[in-house]
Amino acid sequence: MNIKEKNVKELEALSEDIRKRILEVVSKNGGHLSSTLGATEIIVAMHKVFDSQKDPFIFDVSHQAYAHKLLTGRWEEFDTLRQFNGICGYTKPSESSDDYFVAGHSSTSISLGVGAAKAIALKGEQNERIPVVLIGDGSMTAGMVYEALNELGERKYPMIIILNDNEMSIAKPIGAISRMLSSAMASPFYQRFKKNTESFVDNFGDGARYIAKRMEESLKLITPGILFEEMGINYIGPVDGHNIAQLVDIMKTARKLNEPVIIHAQTLKGKGYEIAEGKEEKWHGVGPFDLSSGSSAKKTATKSATQIYTESLLSLCEKNEKIVGVTAAMPSGTGLSTLIEKYPTRFWDVAIAEQHAVTSMAAMAKEGFKPFCSIYSTFLQRAYDQVIHDTCLMDLPVVFALDRAGIVGEDGETHQGVFDVSYLRAIPNMTLFAPRDEKSFHQAMGFAAKYEHPCSLRYPRGSFITTDLPESAPFELGKSQLLQTAKSNILFIGYGNGVGRAYQTAKCMKEDVSILDLRFVKPLDGEMLRDLSDKYNKWFVFSDTAKHGGVGSAILEFLAKENILNISVVSFEYEDAFITHGNTRVVEESLELLPEQLAEKVINHNP
Amino acid sequence: MNIKEKNVKELEALSEDIRKRILEVVSKNGGHLSSTLGATEIIVAMHKVFDSQKDPFIFDVSHQAYAHKLLTGRWEEFDTLRQFNGICGYTKPSESSDDYFVAGHSSTSISLGVGAAKAIALKGEQNERIPVVLIGDGSMTAGMVYEALNELGERKYPMIIILNDNEMSIAKPIGAISRMLSSAMASPFYQRFKKNTESFVDNFGDGARYIAKRMEESLKLITPGILFEEMGINYIGPVDGHNIAQLVDIMKTARKLNEPVIIHAQTLKGKGYEIAEGKEEKWHGVGPFDLSSGSSAKKTATKSATQIYTESLLSLCEKNEKIVGVTAAMPSGTGLSTLIEKYPTRFWDVAIAEQHAVTSMAAMAKEGFKPFCSIYSTFLQRAYDQVIHDTCLMDLPVVFALDRAGIVGEDGETHQGVFDVSYLRAIPNMTLFAPRDEKSFHQAMGFAAKYEHPCSLRYPRGSFITTDLPESAPFELGKSQLLQTAKSNILFIGYGNGVGRAYQTAKCMKEDVSILDLRFVKPLDGEMLRDLSDKYNKWFVFSDTAKHGGVGSAILEFLAKENILNISVVSFEYEDAFITHGNTRVVEESLELLPEQLAEKVINHNP
Repeated sequence: MNIKEKNVKELEALSEDIRKRILEVVSKNGGHLSSTLGATEIIVAMHKVFDSQKDPFIFDVSHQAYAHKLLTGRWEEFDTLRQFNGICGYTKPSESSDDYFVAGHSSTSISLGVGAAKAIALKGEQNERIPVVLIGDGSMTAGMVYEALNELGERKYPMIIILNDNEMSIAKPIGAISRMLSSAMASPFYQRFKKNTESFVDNFGDGARYIAKRMEESLKLITPGILFEEMGINYIGPVDGHNIAQLVDIMKTARKLNEPVIIHAQTLKGKGYEIAEGKEEKWHGVGPFDLSSGSSAKKTATKSATQIYTESLLSLCEKNEKIVGVTAAMPSGTGLSTLIEKYPTRFWDVAIAEQHAVTSMAAMAKEGFKPFCSIYSTFLQRAYDQVIHDTCLMDLPVVFALDRAGIVGEDGETHQGVFDVSYLRAIPNMTLFAPRDEKSFHQAMGFAAKYEHPCSLRYPRGSFITTDLPESAPFELGKSQLLQTAKSNILFIGYGNGVGRAYQTAKCMKEDVSILDLRFVKPLDGEMLRDLSDKYNKWFVFSDTAKHGGVGSAILEFLAKENILNISVVSFEYEDAFITHGNTRVVEESLELLPEQLAEKVINHNP
Repeated sequence: MNIKEKNVKELEALSEDIRKRILEVVSKNGGHLSSTLGATEIIVAMHKVFDSQKDPFIFDVSHQAYAHKLLTGRWEEFDTLRQFNGICGYTKPSESSDDYFVAGHSSTSISLGVGAAKAIALKGEQNERIPVVLIGDGSMTAGMVYEALNELGERKYPMIIILNDNEMSIAKPIGAISRMLSSAMASPFYQRFKKNTESFVDNFGDGARYIAKRMEESLKLITPGILFEEMGINYIGPVDGHNIAQLVDIMKTARKLNEPVIIHAQTLKGKGYEIAEGKEEKWHGVGPFDLSSGSSAKKTATKSATQIYTESLLSLCEKNEKIVGVTAAMPSGTGLSTLIEKYPTRFWDVAIAEQHAVTSMAAMAKEGFKPFCSIYSTFLQRAYDQVIHDTCLMDLPVVFALDRAGIVGEDGETHQGVFDVSYLRAIPNMTLFAPRDEKSFHQAMGFAAKYEHPCSLRYPRGSFITTDLPESAPFELGKSQLLQTAKSNILFIGYGNGVGRAYQTAKCMKEDVSILDLRFVKPLDGEMLRDLSDKYNKWFVFSDTAKHGGVGSAILEFLAKENILNISVVSFEYEDAFITHGNTRVVEESLELLPEQLAEKVINHNP
């Protein structure tokens, strides 16, 4: 039966089925859970009232859109969620024409809505189509949202924005904006109103008392929406985000306004799965888990790079009280939660606000502190200008600790951490390096803590490729480490996790090769490279970075500058294409980046 | 006499002297005018109440800080404003310890203030020091400001924010936020309050009437600050930003609060120079002009690249109604104002909001339109993630038209357009090209208008280097144009304005050289480059881009991939350092980039 024909009872039953299906698949494959469970009724109501083949359905971050996927012909296929060649964990137009846009980074939805609305207006389709945006409260902190609301409030394009307020976002939401959204808040405005009125009410009669009471109530109701109303955007709410009948009615009313409207829906995180209900960060994104107990499947034995980062930073903090740090709404993902807990006056979660995170830390550096910005490689793209203009131009000693560098696996193309070397290497005053294993990570962190200029280190999601590498030498600015030498003319150059890959590739070969851990891609170890250019003329570069402007490119620039012409340089960095989701090993295999595949390429390379 | 000892009359006289000095120098050197004239009393009051040697004085964008420069030991030296080795047009710590931070891009000030405040708190210096931020209303639209206010309102660090509201920004401010700041606005909230009360007041006696009136007045007064109050930040205002006595009093009061405070000061743009008073964009940034008449000094005869852009876009728009476009608060700088005027439903100024500008245009592209994002090279850094995640991942046909690419002259290091090729080239699906003169610009625009993927073209501030080049051939994807061939083994490869530089360099040499206009740095013209590698083995790259990851780097990557080993490639792109301000020719001379300097380098190059 078409969803348009279903009555409220049937829609409620449908919501339950959707939840069951989500739990079934996510407990098996891993994925996002709390937010998508909480948004189920909202999405069902969206499909009842609007039409995703016609109306642009825009899901912010889109990890809450599983119900939408299930409602648009992907019920069976949903089994393959987040698997290679399977259903993507985010909306993806190439997967379905019901998915309007790619979205894996947060807070883009209202801008997209404004663009769609402008197009609809130009095409004269306002009576037939309207953008319908679903955005969580956690996404409201990023500046982009305000840039978009600013134009929307001024130009008043018809648009429905459903604010899914589960008071969660990824971490506990911080900041004035999330407080404003809380309907139970004691707003300073309301408080002042009360204070102002009370004395008058006592001096005048019942009329005054009555009117004051009315005003008080009206203010109370209005409070959570006042920001939006002030901006020129209609506000309806708060409403119960699990009450389908109410949601459907309100969406219909909102549609008729033909103006921008925000529907503020309050939902329960993890709704329908008791173990996760109301829980915070833990149930946001999960690996496979046991549905009845909620306990997660086996943990990997090897320490993750993030764990090493936390340990290292903790130990540095004990010795150096100038160390401070920030995360932009990823306290657990970046391993910073331990530090925030232990040093609440030195480490902060500033909400989804990468621009502010970087620039505020630049000011702390100017004041003599040593800030560590813990940001995923892919999210630092959000603060590129702040790295250039506020940090490097001032030559300030901010450390950018880039987690999730390289292929991130199941999250896929929106989250791959592949561009950082290319976009950071061009910035003057910036130093770039990478650890290859646990010991070198501690050494790299020690170096970073003492270094007096901007610098950035990168490390992978999960564990380093191997723990089997030769002992790491101390970390010195611009110094590489030669791990093994051979009589062949072949040199492997590894950067970060690429060192492990080079090592494993070497193991797959009969011929002996030399291996260099580059460590610093900026500045390069010129002396070492010059020396090696005398001995080896077939160089292979191993690094989990984009090829354009990447590590191989840095080496080529060096050789050109030095007029060294006889070296053949082959880079095994990522080719110029977005990289899809799936198990990391499977994805790497598809890119021909497994050690055995690389070994064959090395053997067959005859310049 | 120290400013601290001056009385109000003396401070007023000082303000007049400052204005005279600013007018004297700016009319001679060019520079920013309206905003710095308008901010004079505020800055004088800041120095009376606070101490820039102690309190972080943070000027947003900082083009309004001339008075601050004059008050901190740079009165005489101010003669050299914006000249090479002279006083910078923006705050610059290396110039004076009274300048806290570099700022040429907008909307960073509150983040810097939060960082400084955190540092002050950690050092226990709250009684001695407080960050003092001066921000214009135009800067309030960028998302960074809200990210920072969000944390500030939550954590309540002591900080003074002076909002210099001259209703100007660079262009006429657009958007809901600027409307909110206008104290005379009829806020929807206030309107609803009035409507709600009126009927009651008639039914009840004098008491009700009195209380309703009181409430009405209090709401009226409160309106412009309600956003800030709601966020948890104290609001004082609006106050007269030219009344020094009042400003001093309020700043003293604000200091005592030991909390975040916004002082909303209203000022007159161009105050004190009658010809500029109240005028909009025209007097924001100016070239040299005649002080008595206000008329500007001689115009250059050659057409600027921006003018060619406007002409070209206008002509394309007439033929293709799918073309739309956006500027982020630079309608006149990017030449888009003509288009906004002629096609108000197709071209928009979205205020300082590069992130929203890009993402909203990506949605328009998804809807079948052909958007041109007209953004300076340096400002696109603000929307890097939006180019990657919202445009290129979706492979949408958005055109990024990068004005001010290369050295920008007097604005200096914050505004140089040098990184774009490095940061854009790494992005899959992106195509990069550049015109070299007027005709090729029209051809490049024609190509862009038809191209069905993301692409970016770059062009210089002012005019192209020369109009003297051979006739431009039609523009085709990935096709270069060979301009001249010679029997020597030397090949010059030019990109964009670099073609003119290559041409002029060739003229300075006795030996004949071949010259290639590369046109596309992505994708490269592989066939042509392979062919040329057979004939020439000394290649020189001319391009106004950063060397790391730039045009030379792209060529090296190509040669490496093709296993072409015998070519020496020398790049004359910018070295890895920030480039200072000054007359473009003088700056280029200091970088040894003038044709005669380059010719000598070519002659002396013996690999």
